[in-house]
Amino acid sequence: MDTKILLAESDMPTHWYNVVADMPTPPSPPLGPDGQPVDPAMLSAIFPEAIIQQEISSERWIEIPKPVREALYLWRPSPLYRAHRLEKKLGTPAKIYYKNESISPAGSHKPNTAIPQAYYNKQAGIKRLTTETGAGQWGCSLSLAGQIFGLDVRVYMVKVSYEQKPYRRSMMKTWGAEVFASPTNMTEAGRNVLAKDPDSPGSLGIAISEAVEEAAGREDTNYSLGSVLNHVLLHQTIIGEEAKKQLAMVGDYPDTVFAPCGGGSNFGGIAFPFFADKAAGKAIELVAVEPTSCPTLTKGTYAYDYGDVAGLTPIMKMYTLGHDFMPPGIHAGGLRYHGDSPLVSQLHHEGLISAVAIPQLETFQAGVLFAQSEGIVPAPESTHAIAATIREAKRCIDTGENKTLLFNLSGHGHFDMTAYDRFFDGSLEDFEYPEEAIKASLAHLPNIG
Amino acid sequence: MDTKILLAESDMPTHWYNVVADMPTPPSPPLGPDGQPVDPAMLSAIFPEAIIQQEISSERWIEIPKPVREALYLWRPSPLYRAHRLEKKLGTPAKIYYKNESISPAGSHKPNTAIPQAYYNKQAGIKRLTTETGAGQWGCSLSLAGQIFGLDVRVYMVKVSYEQKPYRRSMMKTWGAEVFASPTNMTEAGRNVLAKDPDSPGSLGIAISEAVEEAAGREDTNYSLGSVLNHVLLHQTIIGEEAKKQLAMVGDYPDTVFAPCGGGSNFGGIAFPFFADKAAGKAIELVAVEPTSCPTLTKGTYAYDYGDVAGLTPIMKMYTLGHDFMPPGIHAGGLRYHGDSPLVSQLHHEGLISAVAIPQLETFQAGVLFAQSEGIVPAPESTHAIAATIREAKRCIDTGENKTLLFNLSGHGHFDMTAYDRFFDGSLEDFEYPEEAIKASLAHLPNIG
Repeated sequence: MDTKILLAESDMPTHWYNVVADMPTPPSPPLGPDGQPVDPAMLSAIFPEAIIQQEISSERWIEIPKPVREALYLWRPSPLYRAHRLEKKLGTPAKIYYKNESISPAGSHKPNTAIPQAYYNKQAGIKRLTTETGAGQWGCSLSLAGQIFGLDVRVYMVKVSYEQKPYRRSMMKTWGAEVFASPTNMTEAGRNVLAKDPDSPGSLGIAISEAVEEAAGREDTNYSLGSVLNHVLLHQTIIGEEAKKQLAMVGDYPDTVFAPCGGGSNFGGIAFPFFADKAAGKAIELVAVEPTSCPTLTKGTYAYDYGDVAGLTPIMKMYTLGHDFMPPGIHAGGLRYHGDSPLVSQLHHEGLISAVAIPQLETFQAGVLFAQSEGIVPAPESTHAIAATIREAKRCIDTGENKTLLFNLSGHGHFDMTAYDRFFDGSLEDFEYPEEAIKASLAHLPNIG
Repeated sequence: MDTKILLAESDMPTHWYNVVADMPTPPSPPLGPDGQPVDPAMLSAIFPEAIIQQEISSERWIEIPKPVREALYLWRPSPLYRAHRLEKKLGTPAKIYYKNESISPAGSHKPNTAIPQAYYNKQAGIKRLTTETGAGQWGCSLSLAGQIFGLDVRVYMVKVSYEQKPYRRSMMKTWGAEVFASPTNMTEAGRNVLAKDPDSPGSLGIAISEAVEEAAGREDTNYSLGSVLNHVLLHQTIIGEEAKKQLAMVGDYPDTVFAPCGGGSNFGGIAFPFFADKAAGKAIELVAVEPTSCPTLTKGTYAYDYGDVAGLTPIMKMYTLGHDFMPPGIHAGGLRYHGDSPLVSQLHHEGLISAVAIPQLETFQAGVLFAQSEGIVPAPESTHAIAATIREAKRCIDTGENKTLLFNLSGHGHFDMTAYDRFFDGSLEDFEYPEEAIKASLAHLPNIG
């Protein structure tokens, strides 16, 4: 059979799938600092109405606007690959498929939500978007989307990344965005930090505060987030919908789906459309893969907590390691998040999906094996899904099962080669499970909810 | 109409097209230092028989072996894009198409020839390939190909690039290759250079000498080259063949085809299959695009010259700026070659193709405009074809012609972001036409041929 299963543009899904419609219990609402559910209208200072409606919707299908579909055609539908060479190298009877999201211009699945977010903001008359970025994947995606729809984009990039990872910064500039090293002296949040520590290296929490402050304070400016929230996961479901169509074209269906899980948009994107079948009685396992150094789903607590370090966001019910937990400096920057999507968290709490944590060295071993068999050098986040898939494919050798496995190759590693260098020179390390740090931060959960 | 025109794997060409079959005069043979045509058997110290036969073949169609096709399926057929957004941004009545070769795992068209070269060497019982690389595009491609067919690959990487461009070096290692900073003390050529200058930054010419010396001296080792030679251009014709099929699917045919031209494999790859139609009487213009700072076809002399700086290779009839011409340090490293493919040179000499030279700043302006409309950040080499296409598309605005233009997007710029940085900060420069340097080096042409 073919290596790649391709969909025509005319076969790209026309609607996103909203998992809320099939969840056995309604999602727990986000709460304000007073412990009361957040009024959606309060969000209108930073989000357009269409996004707010998607955030609270329980409609099963939500139409993808035509201009959004036309922009997604720049790379979508993405190919589904049968990993013939990886199967052969492993000697497994399992069939391995992967969805190749690395082919977007920004190199990951992130533009799937950046494009509609920019579109809805443009429709609402907004002129400028702000956001934060760590290593730059999300900042790049929003810069591209802003350029496509004619919106100015201002990215607050964590200072230490701004200095250490100049290439994603250059990419954002190529797509016309302004990029600032956060903390800046342009916001009160930034000035407060600089007053205490002029040499602050910044953090994602600080950058979020700066981006939200600017968006909240300006009529023509909104804020955009790349994961965690319901509407973000909704936009990513196009991945799993396409994969279902493509597998059906070759008469196949997965026994198990694996995806990296940090904020949850990668996992939700590929897994939720399959959850619809599971909710209807189909046997399928959906596995979120996280790093052992930031084991939110596998070692965290299911509780109400803040989405950011500084405690400025609404309080959300989710698996959390505590909002002031600082994960070790692993290279999969997209998986270094203390919490998780409330939707993913609830499904996990109710036993409807599963989770596994994998140490950093095993993920890079898997990434190199993948590159050496399938060609593509994967992003450190994606290597987590690859490693979990390889574990299962090896188990199938022992049991003789010819299971069908599917994983999300969420991005390429072209901007992460220093991590591969460290793997090869032996300086990459596994981190101990940070039990004491997690215990300490879990003691700071808000007394709400 | 659709943004992307896709071919199924079953529609990928099964044969390469050999332009020699349609050239009005036979190619001029390569000569040895004695001025006599090189005996193909002399090449067997560094090339396998199948490659030597392709180098001298005049058969129109040469079959692509099945294992080569199966390896190419890892990314081929590559999509043909209709550049709707670029057309709109320019306001041109011209239709612009581009072939997207940036989606290969190595990020350029180079694996199209690395894969068959590795295959034929493996078939011939060879255990190891040597090659040289500058910025690393070609070294990456051969590393990938060696990994696929189970050959060891040793890359001599120009020392200054080895130190300044670590990421492509890491990529080669990920694909299992050994990478050395050239000059090394592992070869006589390297030791000679180091004896005179222990701090030598290296050059492509030195690296070629090291790679050839090792291959010539070992039974189990061959050498592999990424451009210039006939068999390399042959392997790249899959690009143009696919493009013809894809254009036919939408009932279109190009008036003009543009491709970057350094050693010639990029241009030959997309243009030669269209030359077959031109030879049969069809009106079509084939344009090789080169940098004004290294204007081989537009300002060089058509004469016998060495392929390398040190004068170790056979002498080939080609457009040349002189084998010891040192081009200015433009960022399109793949276009910094003093000579050109003998096949491309002969077609140009006979007036059957045309050439244009474009200054560096204009190419980067074009690259940014392309990234801001089509998403993909192009390689500096590719921006040359984009710039030439934009010139023609703008001319069509003035004349009102709705011409059909096609160019080869040969690679992405993910490892060239420092060049974009320099463009944005204003430190990127145009170079004066190096008239005196070219005049001086042309005085050193061999007195042969």
